[in-house]
Amino acid sequence: MNNPAYTVHPIGRVHKKDGRVWIEIKDAYREAMLGLEGFSHVHVFYWFHENDNDQSRSMMQVRPRRDPKNPLTGVFATHSPHRPNLIALTLCRILKIDDLNIEIEKIDAKDGSPVIDIKCYIPYSVDAKEIQVPDWV
Amino acid sequence: MNNPAYTVHPIGRVHKKDGRVWIEIKDAYREAMLGLEGFSHVHVFYWFHENDNDQSRSMMQVRPRRDPKNPLTGVFATHSPHRPNLIALTLCRILKIDDLNIEIEKIDAKDGSPVIDIKCYIPYSVDAKEIQVPDWV
Repeated sequence: MNNPAYTVHPIGRVHKKDGRVWIEIKDAYREAMLGLEGFSHVHVFYWFHENDNDQSRSMMQVRPRRDPKNPLTGVFATHSPHRPNLIALTLCRILKIDDLNIEIEKIDAKDGSPVIDIKCYIPYSVDAKEIQVPDWV
Repeated sequence: MNNPAYTVHPIGRVHKKDGRVWIEIKDAYREAMLGLEGFSHVHVFYWFHENDNDQSRSMMQVRPRRDPKNPLTGVFATHSPHRPNLIALTLCRILKIDDLNIEIEKIDAKDGSPVIDIKCYIPYSVDAKEIQVPDWV
């Protein structure tokens, strides 16, 4: 198995100011926003840019939620900001779209985080009774 | 706003053969799998590697589901495989984990697709009554 690498360019940025939270899309991607106003929620993909270093990328196991009482867990079984590729995913509720700015209710990203993709949220047809999670969740 | 680029390395690959579907994780990321067996579902992030070219990356609008009856829609308001960063996201049900292989029920990825992240699935606390989608969905 060869080991290619792929390139990700930010398509926008998270802003947090005076209690408001919004994603500013770059002008080059304006046309990609058409029709977003029909959705109440979007999946926001951002980059843990402050952790883009060998140490965070090679951290394979963590205590979830930084709680020492939680079991040592592989990063693929967590949402840890330390992982081989620093991709973050959050479901966000849209409050308003104003030109290039998507105002959202909240996001766990820091102010200034690079946004790398936006996808409309279409509810999953997962039977809640089928879902299992470990005790630490 | 400057325009940095980030690097993504595949952490595994999708396999489809004889009706079975599995993700083979690279040996270098073995430790990152610890605890995955406690979850029934994972979010699988893969790369639309066959579309990693200027044409797909600069396609800003599509007809969703390639249906000409659907309205022209910005790619951020779709799950189109043509988008600025070729990130795909699918929720998958785990059937079995055997060493480096995560057998899953199904995935919309092609055989051979590079997997770029795995995150445990923790159900969202989204009120279904709040979710709105446009008519084409």
